[in-house]
Amino acid sequence: MPVTTVSLEPPYLLYLGDVADDDHAKTGHGIACWRPEQCVGQMRLPGCPVDIGLPEMSVVDAVDAGVKTAIIGVAPVGGRIPDQWVPQLIELAGAGIDIAAGMHTRLAAMPDLVAAASEGGARLTDVRVPPPGIPVGTGTPRSGKRVLTLGTDCAVGKKYTALAMHRELERRDIRATFRATGQTGIMIAGEGIPIDAVVADFVSGAAEMLSPDNDDDHWDVIEGQGSLWNPGYSGVTLGLLHGSQPDAIVVCHDASRTRILDVGGDYPIPELDEVIDDALRLARRTQPRCFCAGVSVNTSRMGDLERDTYLGELQHNLALPCVDPIATGVSPIVNFMLKYA
Amino acid sequence: MPVTTVSLEPPYLLYLGDVADDDHAKTGHGIACWRPEQCVGQMRLPGCPVDIGLPEMSVVDAVDAGVKTAIIGVAPVGGRIPDQWVPQLIELAGAGIDIAAGMHTRLAAMPDLVAAASEGGARLTDVRVPPPGIPVGTGTPRSGKRVLTLGTDCAVGKKYTALAMHRELERRDIRATFRATGQTGIMIAGEGIPIDAVVADFVSGAAEMLSPDNDDDHWDVIEGQGSLWNPGYSGVTLGLLHGSQPDAIVVCHDASRTRILDVGGDYPIPELDEVIDDALRLARRTQPRCFCAGVSVNTSRMGDLERDTYLGELQHNLALPCVDPIATGVSPIVNFMLKYA
Repeated sequence: MPVTTVSLEPPYLLYLGDVADDDHAKTGHGIACWRPEQCVGQMRLPGCPVDIGLPEMSVVDAVDAGVKTAIIGVAPVGGRIPDQWVPQLIELAGAGIDIAAGMHTRLAAMPDLVAAASEGGARLTDVRVPPPGIPVGTGTPRSGKRVLTLGTDCAVGKKYTALAMHRELERRDIRATFRATGQTGIMIAGEGIPIDAVVADFVSGAAEMLSPDNDDDHWDVIEGQGSLWNPGYSGVTLGLLHGSQPDAIVVCHDASRTRILDVGGDYPIPELDEVIDDALRLARRTQPRCFCAGVSVNTSRMGDLERDTYLGELQHNLALPCVDPIATGVSPIVNFMLKYA
Repeated sequence: MPVTTVSLEPPYLLYLGDVADDDHAKTGHGIACWRPEQCVGQMRLPGCPVDIGLPEMSVVDAVDAGVKTAIIGVAPVGGRIPDQWVPQLIELAGAGIDIAAGMHTRLAAMPDLVAAASEGGARLTDVRVPPPGIPVGTGTPRSGKRVLTLGTDCAVGKKYTALAMHRELERRDIRATFRATGQTGIMIAGEGIPIDAVVADFVSGAAEMLSPDNDDDHWDVIEGQGSLWNPGYSGVTLGLLHGSQPDAIVVCHDASRTRILDVGGDYPIPELDEVIDDALRLARRTQPRCFCAGVSVNTSRMGDLERDTYLGELQHNLALPCVDPIATGVSPIVNFMLKYA
């Protein structure tokens, strides 16, 4: 199976530039959360409000700390590298520190950075590069079991939920593979396909390739991308959904989000029962037995009591396991999924 | 607005290779239908069953007839040029005849062909190349009016219907622009964006760019791509639908088609009332007032009586204008659209 494979040398420095909020620093947060033993520092431009909680480093600090790779920890809309980051990236590369990024703008297409890396002996790794030879999707039914996380919007915990479910399945000695579809997931897993960087005609083909035929008792846990309700990314999400043929979906949501982020109109997030109905109606086009195994909600802005009330009411209304993947864990969703799949 | 523009020098020779059926020769049929005055011949490999009805030509005939451009008239799944076509293409280019194609495989990436074209003084034009600088879609509401053709499958008449509606609007002195989204449409119109060749993250942004703000009484008639019900292309279609923000959709269908073409599973085409409901539910995410202005059906395999009965029953059941764009014309759909938009 052709996938994008990446091999980044730790320890890592997480580069945050001047990212404005945590939602857009999800790559940095994701690497710090799932590969904590490999992260030794963070680097920011003056005034950057996001703090991952790692030691602040200059280029000299990073060299002293033995940093091998600086990972750009920001996922801006459109995936372009802002001009104001470039001097620090050039300084890092010139000091011999590898740079990895998952932007649509390729590091390899930035001549000054390429020159600095060549001089400093640093490697530039573009993670968001699809493998060659992706076919058009065929919709051919596949063996093995698959679960896909689907978001009510971008940056609501699709990757986190998928990684947590994968970890829980492994803890139970159930055979499972995490299938990364975005830059952060690929950096964490070491391989995957950056679905949103694939030419549109081949998106569902890429999803089919990423989760191929497998043993009947094997689970592919597929990281979702975008959102069916986000006017910018809905096509990516539908291609991934149809190509994945998931037996189960898990809906991911941020309890503090009532409207789609980063858009130009008023796009309210629908009620979750409507979200589930719409998603299943679409999913069943390629996988007629698809069901929703639960809802995974980021409730980090709630207190314990508020969270319990919120999740309890949601669970009552939807008759599905409703969890916060960090505060309560995904175990109830995994139970439900395994029971009904 | 950045779009792909192409300028092909007539007269044209339509190259069909060994295409197996008319559905896959839709580029050739489209050019012959909408630019008949520019087409002087066709070229095929031995045994090719498709016949556009133009004079059969060898390379020598084409040179004698003053052919300036050979257009590859086939749209194979995956858009790759089969090896067996290459010798004839090389011969054409070597004889100084320009070659134009709308494949995912670029002519410019075929070294032997490039060499032959250089020697023969021929130009190679790859039509399926998106313009640079396409942004992520924002969903920002736009002024002007837009109609999008939506297919129950690929190759059911989306482009034909859009071109016919555009011609009908112009005939009535209503300001309108045909917005091409595929290779054939772009060759006919001279410009457009090949939506299915855009990187997935930017599909709805491309659709937004292609049909920008306009005067309140101006119609963009947007050519549809793929199908929401085709497991290979549904993501392309949804991105185009959400980015287009159409005031009206026109559903296109082939009366002889009960199942999706070229797929690996059993994908029945849903009933047309369900098709319309599903499409409008999705369309209204970015354009709450979207309505269906009619159904445009290819009934070419029916006799007159059968056609009349079929369209009459459909129109009765759906309470919408139902036409064959060739046999009966699209005028009733245009009437309905103008009345209710």
